Amino acid sequence: MSNVVVQNIERADPEIVDALGKCGVATVHEAQGRKGLLASYMRPIYSGARIGGSAVTISSPPGDNWMVHVAIEQLKEGDILLLAPTSPCEDGYFGDLLATSAMARGCRGLIIDAGVRDIRDLTEMDFPVWSKAVYAQGTVKNTLGSVNVPVTCANQYVRPGDIIVADDDGVVCVRREEAEDVLKKSLDREAKEEEKRQRLAAGELGLDIYDMRPRLEQMGLKYV
Amino acid sequence: MSNVVVQNIERADPEIVDALGKCGVATVHEAQGRKGLLASYMRPIYSGARIGGSAVTISSPPGDNWMVHVAIEQLKEGDILLLAPTSPCEDGYFGDLLATSAMARGCRGLIIDAGVRDIRDLTEMDFPVWSKAVYAQGTVKNTLGSVNVPVTCANQYVRPGDIIVADDDGVVCVRREEAEDVLKKSLDREAKEEEKRQRLAAGELGLDIYDMRPRLEQMGLKYV
Amino acid sequence: MSNVVVQNIERADPEIVDALGKCGVATVHEAQGRKGLLASYMRPIYSGARIGGSAVTISSPPGDNWMVHVAIEQLKEGDILLLAPTSPCEDGYFGDLLATSAMARGCRGLIIDAGVRDIRDLTEMDFPVWSKAVYAQGTVKNTLGSVNVPVTCANQYVRPGDIIVADDDGVVCVRREEAEDVLKKSLDREAKEEEKRQRLAAGELGLDIYDMRPRLEQMGLKYV
Amino acid sequence: MSNVVVQNIERADPEIVDALGKCGVATVHEAQGRKGLLASYMRPIYSGARIGGSAVTISSPPGDNWMVHVAIEQLKEGDILLLAPTSPCEDGYFGDLLATSAMARGCRGLIIDAGVRDIRDLTEMDFPVWSKAVYAQGTVKNTLGSVNVPVTCANQYVRPGDIIVADDDGVVCVRREEAEDVLKKSLDREAKEEEKRQRLAAGELGLDIYDMRPRLEQMGLKYV
Amino acid sequence: MSNVVVQNIERADPEIVDALGKCGVATVHEAQGRKGLLASYMRPIYSGARIGGSAVTISSPPGDNWMVHVAIEQLKEGDILLLAPTSPCEDGYFGDLLATSAMARGCRGLIIDAGVRDIRDLTEMDFPVWSKAVYAQGTVKNTLGSVNVPVTCANQYVRPGDIIVADDDGVVCVRREEAEDVLKKSLDREAKEEEKRQRLAAGELGLDIYDMRPRLEQMGLKYV
Amino acid sequence: MSNVVVQNIERADPEIVDALGKCGVATVHEAQGRKGLLASYMRPIYSGARIGGSAVTISSPPGDNWMVHVAIEQLKEGDILLLAPTSPCEDGYFGDLLATSAMARGCRGLIIDAGVRDIRDLTEMDFPVWSKAVYAQGTVKNTLGSVNVPVTCANQYVRPGDIIVADDDGVVCVRREEAEDVLKKSLDREAKEEEKRQRLAAGELGLDIYDMRPRLEQMGLKYV
Repeated sequence: MSNVVVQNIERADPEIVDALGKCGVATVHEAQGRKGLLASYMRPIYSGARIGGSAVTISSPPGDNWMVHVAIEQLKEGDILLLAPTSPCEDGYFGDLLATSAMARGCRGLIIDAGVRDIRDLTEMDFPVWSKAVYAQGTVKNTLGSVNVPVTCANQYVRPGDIIVADDDGVVCVRREEAEDVLKKSLDREAKEEEKRQRLAAGELGLDIYDMRPRLEQMGLKYV
Repeated sequence: MSNVVVQNIERADPEIVDALGKCGVATVHEAQGRKGLLASYMRPIYSGARIGGSAVTISSPPGDNWMVHVAIEQLKEGDILLLAPTSPCEDGYFGDLLATSAMARGCRGLIIDAGVRDIRDLTEMDFPVWSKAVYAQGTVKNTLGSVNVPVTCANQYVRPGDIIVADDDGVVCVRREEAEDVLKKSLDREAKEEEKRQRLAAGELGLDIYDMRPRLEQMGLKYV
Repeated sequence: MSNVVVQNIERADPEIVDALGKCGVATVHEAQGRKGLLASYMRPIYSGARIGGSAVTISSPPGDNWMVHVAIEQLKEGDILLLAPTSPCEDGYFGDLLATSAMARGCRGLIIDAGVRDIRDLTEMDFPVWSKAVYAQGTVKNTLGSVNVPVTCANQYVRPGDIIVADDDGVVCVRREEAEDVLKKSLDREAKEEEKRQRLAAGELGLDIYDMRPRLEQMGLKYV
Repeated sequence: MSNVVVQNIERADPEIVDALGKCGVATVHEAQGRKGLLASYMRPIYSGARIGGSAVTISSPPGDNWMVHVAIEQLKEGDILLLAPTSPCEDGYFGDLLATSAMARGCRGLIIDAGVRDIRDLTEMDFPVWSKAVYAQGTVKNTLGSVNVPVTCANQYVRPGDIIVADDDGVVCVRREEAEDVLKKSLDREAKEEEKRQRLAAGELGLDIYDMRPRLEQMGLKYV
Repeated sequence: MSNVVVQNIERADPEIVDALGKCGVATVHEAQGRKGLLASYMRPIYSGARIGGSAVTISSPPGDNWMVHVAIEQLKEGDILLLAPTSPCEDGYFGDLLATSAMARGCRGLIIDAGVRDIRDLTEMDFPVWSKAVYAQGTVKNTLGSVNVPVTCANQYVRPGDIIVADDDGVVCVRREEAEDVLKKSLDREAKEEEKRQRLAAGELGLDIYDMRPRLEQMGLKYV
Repeated sequence: MSNVVVQNIERADPEIVDALGKCGVATVHEAQGRKGLLASYMRPIYSGARIGGSAVTISSPPGDNWMVHVAIEQLKEGDILLLAPTSPCEDGYFGDLLATSAMARGCRGLIIDAGVRDIRDLTEMDFPVWSKAVYAQGTVKNTLGSVNVPVTCANQYVRPGDIIVADDDGVVCVRREEAEDVLKKSLDREAKEEEKRQRLAAGELGLDIYDMRPRLEQMGLKYV
């Protein structure tokens, strides 16, 4: 599986992908049984973005962004680029020119376990990026990698076509075949949370809403 | 002192607490002899918040937020929740539902040596948090901890009822019994700084205002 | 070269310095052959600032900001303060009073491989800082250092009078004697990028613009 | 796939596993195309151990080692335990009692993306561990996880039955179905290296052995 | 409490202190209810040391080791020096000369949340140190601190006269007034562990010894 | 200065270099006025090595070790290789084959602000390495760098021909033109330390030997 570009990947139903994006990371993560999160060091370059999309994955050598150019050709409307270097790297693989090109193909954002640059331009362009670092260090174009192969990105295994949801809380990956089920559970969760929010806002306590007092007492919590 | 909830803690005079909050972290820290700071990795989830309040402390196992529910019942108007896990953890112990509940009890914010989530909602709710991480990872409710016992949070020893001041510079703890004295010194310091600020803005040099030149020369500083 | 203050340093032509500042970090870094970047942990205290200036350097002991006062006297219009501690330190060497004084001398900002405080005030004053940490911890004034000697700051060697360019992407240093040449190359680069940006925005691929396909094929990239 | 124990996993031919162990991490990693390494923070608790074995994987909540007990029952002669917490954790999941039990089942060592304790005993017992941390912090037994499911451990995706090779250089994972091929390439590589080692020891240069000079010249390397 | 040296501190019974030292960090930590550990970054400069002693505490400015000289005079046979800088610092506060002096006063070792140097000499002298860093950076003697005041060291609150136990697993602090009780529990624990060790070595499983199977089943663990 | 190999560099007198090596890092660092240290994350792969030598410097792209082969040809008896990547990298640039070749040219060791592998072999060969990481990750040979140009390595500026001293305490750089003077001061320092060591071992206090008591009293230290 070295140095390949997989051209036809399966993607989830766009409506499901979009709906997952609107649910946000924390809800989706809970709904799918608390799995799929990327490491907490993956931070957005600006606040307020919330996206969902299908992963076009890139496996790249450290300090070499050649495969990003290759990957952009594989993008379809609603995709998200996700790059994992083959060893830890903070170099700025991606800047405003690549973002211009990716946006022209319908790309919604970038998830990169490395560095990004041209932050000011990307912010103005409204092209969101979640990255390990902001670093102007340039890269070369000398060594091949792969596009649309499974990668491990920020300690999370991601396959091409899996759904990525990202917001201010970080990044979560949903398996393509589980997307519909996760969406349903996410919407259920949101509905239930809304009811609880109102009760809590009115001053009711979680201790009572969730009936925690008997079990706390049984386990030996002492009030003094 | 394991698995206890201390219900009646002493708090400082609310006027003093509020006034300390207005002085800000850097001033209070200097005024009390350069002590009491939490580690610099404790960062606010959004810029511009500045709060002071009495600490309701939580000692929690890693990845278990049960005690947060217990602690919320102990909150009074003007309190700040402060959570220290018993071993290092980045999990998201706290999100918008808990914030809704805490706000309903008059809580002014959260200091947590771990993770927080639902950043976007918390920002919209104007509920400030200083944390070690932003991370959507959920927690369980299986193991007891304690509420309102002394804890070490981000390398600072904090007792329930101590005053917490937090702003964009970080977080500082003031001993309850020293609060009045520290406030007095903080206000003195602010007054003096204002006078110096004007002289410096007018172009006078610190070298002259603080009469540093003789001692610099005596210690051997060479101008070349 | 211990405990000296070099009073007359050479600076580059102010027009060149200003023009480099406008080019930004990523462009200047590329234009000078991908060198000169400070470590990626050097982050701005607020977004959106972009400055260029001549470095007035400070070598200081850990936790001692005496030399900052000394350095401020050496500032001229258009300078940037750059501080490197002699061993790793996060203390807040610099706050709003020093910024007031530095601004009164025409200083454009601070680059510090340590901590800074009074973030809110500095932001309101529009005095940009790139630092390793935000930390309210105060410093003493007991030990000498040097001003306007070469230093290593965030893994980059900087000489007094070298040009510093800083923006949201980080900080880059340009050798004074190379400034004119680097500016020329930066402007060339900007011009070329603009043309490419338009082609990419129109949907053309980098693979074609840069004629990458033949070499990718020759090196063995497989499309499947 | 939550809270399951997979009891029958396929393992590679024991002779192949043992032979891979003898080749060592660097050779195996190169032989399989530079993939499969766990993060460099995974360090051995003592020097000199070199093992190969089949992975029995554990997915555990942070600070909860219940599943280790469950996993030990699944061990067969020649296996290696590999534990990945569901969120970052440094707690000491494993000590001398668990090692005694694991050794009694034929286990060759532990790979854990968390903490370990009783280092002195483990060293005396000759039970090697590669871990993220050494930390005496105890764990609880309250929350389920899974045994023998695919996990991401120290940024590497590992499936039960994959081969783990570990030595002073770190830890590498070999896919079970590729093991025979990787072994063959590893042995080839070792043979070739031996010949080169002798030529290099005799003073011949890599520049000549690998015929690098023409390409270096063509790419523009200047000798001055 | 600034700039003071407390000369008469209470220490626990030497026999209890010595016995706790022999129990080791993991056992003592468990016996006292899983509390008291210093952060896991505190590592020994050489393997195999295991000590117990009464803490003589030092609060020092960053990069200033003057108070170490002051503290050495306060040492009694069986004491351990414990240094916490007032802000994070890696400087080498301590080397072979100070160790020579401390050993002459009966000191058993050093716990330092900063740097140490002369590692080779300290190892030959058999003077154990647990530190945050090894770093040759020298310190000055310009600013006062305190000796034998409570400090927070590596995220653990330590009072003068508390018992420190340190070995290859790290460092734990035992409150002086709890020492006798913790020792008793530690010895009980050791006795019980020995019996379990033998059963585990004979092949019995923890699942059976601790009767875990019914609860695992009840909580829903599925064997497939 | 891009992509060049400087073939004739000046080296210090071999006797001075060797003598500096014997003084060790802490002494040399103090003798030259507390400057020249590389960052504390540069750790030896095994304990006990102590070397001095002339630096043959390498500036390399991340993940590309081509220039190491080029540098080895430039080695002379008594040299030390020192590699600084152009952006942060942990890849294993160097292993037993390169060490074999370097040793055949008289090289005494490697200082590398990146990764190293084949630790076990290097230890057996007695080829010492101080590195940022141990990591088996392989590198490519695609991009040029430079040999024998000034570099910044682990936050220290090093010029070809500068003297490197390394031992268990870390790594220090001595300017070639200052070597003789630094050696003299190092030997003086050693002589004086020996006398003090004997007095301290006999129980005399540093407080008295250095006559610290009056100044401590004057500055306000209170004994209570």
